[in-house]
Amino acid sequence: MIVITSPDEMTRFSSDALQRSERIGLVPTMGYLHDGHLTLMREGRRQCSILVASIFVNPTQFGPGEDFARYPRNFERDCAMLETVPVDVVFAPAPGAMYSLDAQTLVDAGDITIGLCGAHRPGHFRGVTTVVAKLFNIVKPHVAVFGEKDFQQLRAIQKMVRDLNFDVEIVPVPIVREKDGLAMSSRNAYLSAAEREDALALSLALRAAREKHRSGPCCAEEIVFAATRVLKRMKNVEIEYVEAVDAETLTRHPPLDRPILIAIAARVGKTRLIDNVVLEP
Amino acid sequence: MIVITSPDEMTRFSSDALQRSERIGLVPTMGYLHDGHLTLMREGRRQCSILVASIFVNPTQFGPGEDFARYPRNFERDCAMLETVPVDVVFAPAPGAMYSLDAQTLVDAGDITIGLCGAHRPGHFRGVTTVVAKLFNIVKPHVAVFGEKDFQQLRAIQKMVRDLNFDVEIVPVPIVREKDGLAMSSRNAYLSAAEREDALALSLALRAAREKHRSGPCCAEEIVFAATRVLKRMKNVEIEYVEAVDAETLTRHPPLDRPILIAIAARVGKTRLIDNVVLEP
Repeated sequence: MIVITSPDEMTRFSSDALQRSERIGLVPTMGYLHDGHLTLMREGRRQCSILVASIFVNPTQFGPGEDFARYPRNFERDCAMLETVPVDVVFAPAPGAMYSLDAQTLVDAGDITIGLCGAHRPGHFRGVTTVVAKLFNIVKPHVAVFGEKDFQQLRAIQKMVRDLNFDVEIVPVPIVREKDGLAMSSRNAYLSAAEREDALALSLALRAAREKHRSGPCCAEEIVFAATRVLKRMKNVEIEYVEAVDAETLTRHPPLDRPILIAIAARVGKTRLIDNVVLEP
Repeated sequence: MIVITSPDEMTRFSSDALQRSERIGLVPTMGYLHDGHLTLMREGRRQCSILVASIFVNPTQFGPGEDFARYPRNFERDCAMLETVPVDVVFAPAPGAMYSLDAQTLVDAGDITIGLCGAHRPGHFRGVTTVVAKLFNIVKPHVAVFGEKDFQQLRAIQKMVRDLNFDVEIVPVPIVREKDGLAMSSRNAYLSAAEREDALALSLALRAAREKHRSGPCCAEEIVFAATRVLKRMKNVEIEYVEAVDAETLTRHPPLDRPILIAIAARVGKTRLIDNVVLEP
């Protein structure tokens, strides 16, 4: 496994690999890896001859007052985990190597970024689509793997890829959960033992939504209500949103004959967590 | 010379060419070609083993009330001219093949697009950078050639390429002029014989600017004044702007120890024309 920190060097590596007819896979991450990330890596490994994992805590997708500075980092442990996959290349640029001081160009995927997390984190998805466009241009992957945990991010990137004709196949991978149901996230490291218990409310709320959905004909509002009730029971869980949207377009008032995304964002203590489930008709 | 109209087919062609280690050049145009375009083509031809000319009148870079519908088109004559270069591939997609009905993703190059033409054509440069990003992803060129006639467009594309790490070398080519000095442009076809005479005012104004600059120390305002005076003499020439800006950053109040861009936009009759010159310190 080699570590590359220079974008230009990464591009040279990939251009050479393409001339050798290698199939390049990219798994973009912000590091502090967990089993969810490793599942993405194994999917990339399965599909590609050269697997690149990027580790970059992207400053432009954090808003003022968000956790950019304290976002957890552990590069050596990350590398040890990536060796086990195995990954071929770790691309770990410094922020100054990714953004020149006068960088201004932005990629905006439009309406799909407006609701859900987009409504609560202004500029977040513009930061995401811009850095992913950069990573695609630097790494030149045939395939890029993204987790469904960040469902709106996945949809925004799929929209960007289609609209801008990126020649990259986006591979979604289902959420990986702890044994008790908590969706894996680097931000789970922020939780105290008590908060870790309270955080179960998110996956329990989604289970309640799924059960409501399975129990017979009901409207989106009833499903949202079932999930919200579970969250409201917990004193230390502050709901940011609970929404039912069309799983493709992320628009409200989803038709019930198509897959519906139930998405939750909530604060447990000071930690913002998200989780979701797709309910098939 | 082959003609490709499908973006997917163009991408397959380019992917194959890259595996054969070809060097791909792209010259994006809106068609209705003239000798200025052919100069760009010859530069691309000199540098590349596969030369792609795109012909696409891009609807998203025209504002409401602009000349998208009546923009001159002559695909057969264009192809005959491209054969003489020779060009290897004409990429001529239909608008519906380039933009799906729900396309929304935009690429915005920031401050460099605000002044000059950007101030008079809102959204124009966003349309340009978005379609050029798409063309780069579809054609995968090593080299792309742009004329200095559209100087702000050139700078916006260079900014996008740097900021988004496109692995494309941008090659600028100087303005090609008619014998009497008029900058070549597809829009010159709109001019009546009398307007064609009046249109000379733009290049004459730039000549006056250059002479003022050469004549000894003077500030940017004096250079702009010299150019403006020439334009104001003509009854059928309506000035949109005459500006002196830093030739790299396109910012106002340019330091005189760096190259200065003198840029003009004016209407001759109903036809909007632009022209420019770079004055070296």
